[in-house]
Order: sequence, then structure tokens, then C-alpha cells
Amino acid sequence: MDLTRYAPLLQDNGSRLLLLVIDGVGGYPEVDRGSELESADTPHLDRLAAEGSTGLLEPAGPGVTVGSGPGHLALFGYDPWAHDLGRGVLAAVGVGFDLQPGDVAARGNLATLDADGLVTDRRAGRIGDAQAAPLTERLAGRIDTVDGVEVHLRHISEHRVLVVLRGDGLDPRVADMDPQATGTAPLPARPRDPAAERTAEVLDAVDAALREALAAEEGDGGPDVLLMRGFDAVREMPDFTERTGLRAAAVASYPMYRGVASLVGMDVLGPPRTFDEQIALVEQHRESYDYLFVHHKYADAAGHDGDRERKVAAIEELDAQVPDLLDAAQADVVAVTGDHSSPAALSGHSWHPVPVLLHGAHVGVDDARTFGERACATGLIGRRPTEHLLPLMLGAAGRLAKYGA
Amino acid sequence: MDLTRYAPLLQDNGSRLLLLVIDGVGGYPEVDRGSELESADTPHLDRLAAEGSTGLLEPAGPGVTVGSGPGHLALFGYDPWAHDLGRGVLAAVGVGFDLQPGDVAARGNLATLDADGLVTDRRAGRIGDAQAAPLTERLAGRIDTVDGVEVHLRHISEHRVLVVLRGDGLDPRVADMDPQATGTAPLPARPRDPAAERTAEVLDAVDAALREALAAEEGDGGPDVLLMRGFDAVREMPDFTERTGLRAAAVASYPMYRGVASLVGMDVLGPPRTFDEQIALVEQHRESYDYLFVHHKYADAAGHDGDRERKVAAIEELDAQVPDLLDAAQADVVAVTGDHSSPAALSGHSWHPVPVLLHGAHVGVDDARTFGERACATGLIGRRPTEHLLPLMLGAAGRLAKYGA
Repeated sequence: MDLTRYAPLLQDNGSRLLLLVIDGVGGYPEVDRGSELESADTPHLDRLAAEGSTGLLEPAGPGVTVGSGPGHLALFGYDPWAHDLGRGVLAAVGVGFDLQPGDVAARGNLATLDADGLVTDRRAGRIGDAQAAPLTERLAGRIDTVDGVEVHLRHISEHRVLVVLRGDGLDPRVADMDPQATGTAPLPARPRDPAAERTAEVLDAVDAALREALAAEEGDGGPDVLLMRGFDAVREMPDFTERTGLRAAAVASYPMYRGVASLVGMDVLGPPRTFDEQIALVEQHRESYDYLFVHHKYADAAGHDGDRERKVAAIEELDAQVPDLLDAAQADVVAVTGDHSSPAALSGHSWHPVPVLLHGAHVGVDDARTFGERACATGLIGRRPTEHLLPLMLGAAGRLAKYGA
Repeated sequence: MDLTRYAPLLQDNGSRLLLLVIDGVGGYPEVDRGSELESADTPHLDRLAAEGSTGLLEPAGPGVTVGSGPGHLALFGYDPWAHDLGRGVLAAVGVGFDLQPGDVAARGNLATLDADGLVTDRRAGRIGDAQAAPLTERLAGRIDTVDGVEVHLRHISEHRVLVVLRGDGLDPRVADMDPQATGTAPLPARPRDPAAERTAEVLDAVDAALREALAAEEGDGGPDVLLMRGFDAVREMPDFTERTGLRAAAVASYPMYRGVASLVGMDVLGPPRTFDEQIALVEQHRESYDYLFVHHKYADAAGHDGDRERKVAAIEELDAQVPDLLDAAQADVVAVTGDHSSPAALSGHSWHPVPVLLHGAHVGVDDARTFGERACATGLIGRRPTEHLLPLMLGAAGRLAKYGA
């Protein structure tokens, strides 16, 4: 689907759209019990489903499990295959690092080496946050610039560290230095394009500086090296407001979701610390926006932990806040869905299509009486790519003029 | 979908296909009542749905409301985005003007100007047909040729007038002369390509001749100018018979639908004045054709008027004639759908997917027992782009050979 072809049809009728993303809401019904969403007692979401249209969304094609980046881009109407944000950029976005055009970002793994310099553990003995976070801060304190290039280090989680180079003439076309295997040596930086030769030299120097700093750390058995991979630069994303005519705001607590929204040009409100604060921000700012993206995190976190009961509880807690959110948003069209599925049985994201409901004066009512995978499978929206949702919301809100006479 | 890839598969087995288009048949189910189609008592369409397969069709993508032009092109198996007919061409088609290759067509608005030549009303005081139709005829009588180019004027409706230039070396790449605003002067003709310079000069001369003729009209307060826009030439459409192997006939009363069928190369029968006459034409000519496109207008007209009861009644009246139509067509495969939805609640076309049923010996039976939005949402055809319908009909009729061994 090419949203740019919709540009001549866009019209501003003053309507407001609300997208509520329940992160990881989807799952799959099991033989003896439903999915988490089906098991949860959700009277308010059920009412929206009963009064509206339902369906199932596939973020990036059949069978594909997506991360939060592509999942959200699809919800915002972007083809997640055409707009690959890259691991380095998402890592930066995920920790709230303000990546600038020209920066080169990478993911690093704290790892251990043997006496011959061969990798023994790519996760440095599954180093924990309590050890890795202050270690990363100390490294950042020791390494400020290398060869005239700023080096920024941020702890992500466990063995994961963000590396950002900032300086003139950098180019991200460098092959991974992480060999992605044990018993082999880390790789030197190899430019994949002549324009990246200097960047590769800087990266080798950064690698040497990091090894020196890690060797200077007290105690044995700590990390010896930072294996860098996924070199990437922030890419210019087509602007959401230009594509849709919608003044858009993101109301999310976590850096990743705030970051993805920011990359497409949305205003990012807050940061709120609780969902109540998210609702308050919506109420406070709704008049300034046509599109409000509200992100709810907790179902996904429980899914990651494989905790079915907690995922059910997180969905139920959200459901209880839905009326307040609707009051706060005063939206003409409301969509509720997730960026991907996160069944507790898989302890992570999955490829299963994500339930969606669309609610508004002229959306139409189908036979779904509850919000759940099997109910949504019967709905009027049908089974679609996630990137169809935004144009469906635009159409339902009366924001698309007739095509052709 | 690229129908040209089907070309090597086409085979003529003598089967006949009937497409019944109930214009604007779709709508959306409301909370306390179904859609118009669901409310209508349609025993014959219900029987076809119960014996066949059902689904929902989207003419031009999620959320997009289409006009009749793109809606019918999609039904005929054309990508409605790749084959944009243009406003001028559709205006010509809509009034039954026989546009020729090389002609330049435009839409004109009868408008009023103030003493300074600035637009005061782009609709000339909402001039009615009773005044505008004879006025257009008088203008056509006064202006025959300008600079050696034939000028054809036809009244469309109210303030709307079709302008067609016919002569050698014309080019439609001229910017709109209608400023689309009041308080500003009409724009001179500006070529958007050097090849259109002469056409722009001719248009300025036509504009001057029209102003003079309008000034010569008796009485004050009438239109002073014809604001022209949407300059367009008839574009070569891929021929329907070449694409499908089907000898095709259109059986429609209204010029718009006859015109679109004609543009893709169908034979156009009649014109019939009533649906009974349409049925008679089908019976009379069926042996000469493999594909019969029968257009029923009245549900759409009621939808435009926001008259739910009349839309229901129009559908019921059609339903009563379905057995006669089926007898007359003696088709092997029958498809019933609309070119777009026209819910009375919106008094116009809408983006809602359009119910479809497919009936034939080997089509297959799904759980839909009635012809309506929610029943069709559960059907075997599923939710698809409208342009899938024609290949589905070809397949169901045994007109597509096996692809690959």
C-alpha cells in the first residue's frame, strides 16, 4: 500500500483520531483456554468492539514476528519493510538517546576473551544491570573523543550497550565487528564502501580504547571487549503530518515508543510516569492535536516474562481506565490494537495477527461482541496488513475526499 | 494485481459471465438496525448467496471512497489507481459525449464576477438546470469554432458545463483556469508543457468568446464567465476483450456507466429506459456475448438522497427482478456487487467494503445465508480489492487454464 497516493485526497474536517496501542496485546487461543485477551474481563473494550468493527492485523506479512519499531511504524501507516530503522537507531531510540543526522550508532555486546583474544562469552557471563550500568558509565567517563570523534556510550540492558559516534564525515557502511560466535576473534572494522574508510579506522581506535579501559577495570572475569554490530545512521523518515494531514502527539512512557514517534515527526508529550498521567496529558493537550497515539506497556512486559496471569491482569487494569481515556481524548474515531502479539506461552513477541477494533459514528457494527482473537476474526475489517489501519481511521473520520467522479 | 500476467492462461470454453452491479448497494450495519441491504427483504439475492460464495470488496484500498469511474474500472479488472480517467473525461462520459482521441475535455463552472472581474460566486447563485441548460445551448449556438478549433459545450447539471475542444495538435497539459476561490480573478490558461502552448492560447480565446456571449445575455445577475478546470484527454485504456478474452456488453441506462464501459471497449446496448428493458436487452443479445455487465442505479440514488427507506425499497424492487434477469442471461457464473457503498446515513459514497456474491456450478457454498455486509464478512471470498472479482469470475467459469505443470 502506498500512502503517498492518498495525498490528493486528504482533507481536514477537524476530526480527532485516537490510537490506543496495548503493547503485545495479541496472542493465540489455546485448546483448553482462550488467549490472554479472551480470558481477560474487559467490559469496556468489549463494548467498543460490540459497537464498532473488528479485525486482525499483520504487522509485516504472514508469519513474521516484529519488534516494536516496525510494529509501530506499520500502525503509523508506514511499510515496515521499506522503512527499516536499523538496530543501532532503535537501540538509540530505545534508551532515549537524541540521535542526530550524521551520527553513527551501533549495538555493542560486553563480552569476554580468552588469553588468545578469542571470544569465550558474547554476554560476559550474562552480566547483570547492576554491574553493567555503572561499568558503562565508567567507560563513558574514560572515553570522550577518539581521533577527534565524540564517542557516546549508554547502557541498554544486561550485556547490551549503545555506541554512538558523532563527528564530521562518518559513514555507517561498516561490517559488523561482532563475530557472533565464540572461539573466534572479534573482527576488525571493515568498510563496506570506500566512503566509510575513516569511520572504520575510528571504530578500530574506539575498540582499542574500550579494550584498554576494560582491562583497567579492577577484578578478574569482567568483560574484556565490546563487540559492535549493526552500524547505522538515522534516516530521514517521511513526515507523518505531511503524509496524513494530522497534527500528531505521542503519549508514551517508554523511550522506545517515544523515540519511534519522534522519528516520524510526532510531538512527544511528557514523559508521563503512569497511565493516569498519560490520560491527563491527553486531556490537557487534545485540542492541539488531530491524532493521539497512546501507548500502554504492561501486557507486553508480562508476555515477555511468560506470565499469563499477569498479562491478563495488565489487560484488565487497562480496560478499567478505558472510559477515562475516552473522556480525555474526545475522539471521533478510536482504534485499539497492539504493535505485535506477545503470547505468554512463547515468552516473547510472535507472528500471530493482532486483534483490532475501530469505533466511531460511521464505522459500522459487526458480529463481534467481545474484543478477542476469535471474535475479531469474524469482523468487518477482516485480516489485513497493519499499515491499512491508518487509512481506515482517516476514512472513518471523513478525512479522505472521494477518489474519482 | 496485474491482469496481464493472466493472458497466457485465458481459454474460451463458451461460458457466459453475468456481472450485476447494484450501484451503491453497500453501507454499514448500525447498532440498532442492520445496513440497508441487511434490512431489505431479498429472497432471490439471499438464495444466490446461500448457494454461492460471498465476501467484501474494497474498490481502491482501505479507507478510500471512490466515484463511479474508479469503482467500475475495478469491477472490470483494472487497477483504479493506474487508470485514472480524469475529471474532464468522466464529465464527458457522464453526459454521453462521444469523446475522441485528441479531444481536450474540461469541467466548467458558470460563475459570476464583480465590476473588477473578481469571482463573486463560483456557482452563479446556485443556478438551476432550468436556467443553465438552455443558457448552455445558446452559448453552444454562438460559439462554434475558435481559432480553427471546434468548441463543444454540454450542460451537465446546475452550474456545471462540459467543454470539449476538437482540432489538431491539442494538448491537455494546461493548468486550471478556475481559481477555486472568490475575490480573485479567473486565471489565464497556463501551459504545463511547451506542447500545450497553442491549446492555452485557444483556451484564452474560448474564455474571451464565452465572456462576450454571456455578457450578451439579457438580464442582470446571470453568469459572467465559465471557470474551466480539469483539462484532460481520453487516454487509451487497455482493451477489456484483449485482457480477458471476453466479448463484453454493457446494459446500463445512465451515460456515466455506458461511457466507462465504452472506454474499455465493451459494446454498449440500448439505451434501455427501465430495468425491464435492460433484462429484455440481455435476453436479446446474450448469445453474442461472454460477459454481460448489467447496471442497476436506484439504490445509489436513494443513498445519495439520504433516504434509507427508499434505498431498501430499491434493493427489494431489484431483488424481485433477479429471477427474470437470471433467466434472460443464462449465465454460468453470476456475480452481484456494487461499485462502491452509499450508506443513506452519509448521503453519499463511502469507504465501506462492498458485499459480493459469486454463484455458479463450482463456486462453492459458504455459511452466508443472506446477502448482507455481516453475512459476507464470513464468506469464502474474504475481503479483497475489487479488481480481484473479474479473475475470480474467470476462474469460476473455467476460463483460466492451469498455471504450471
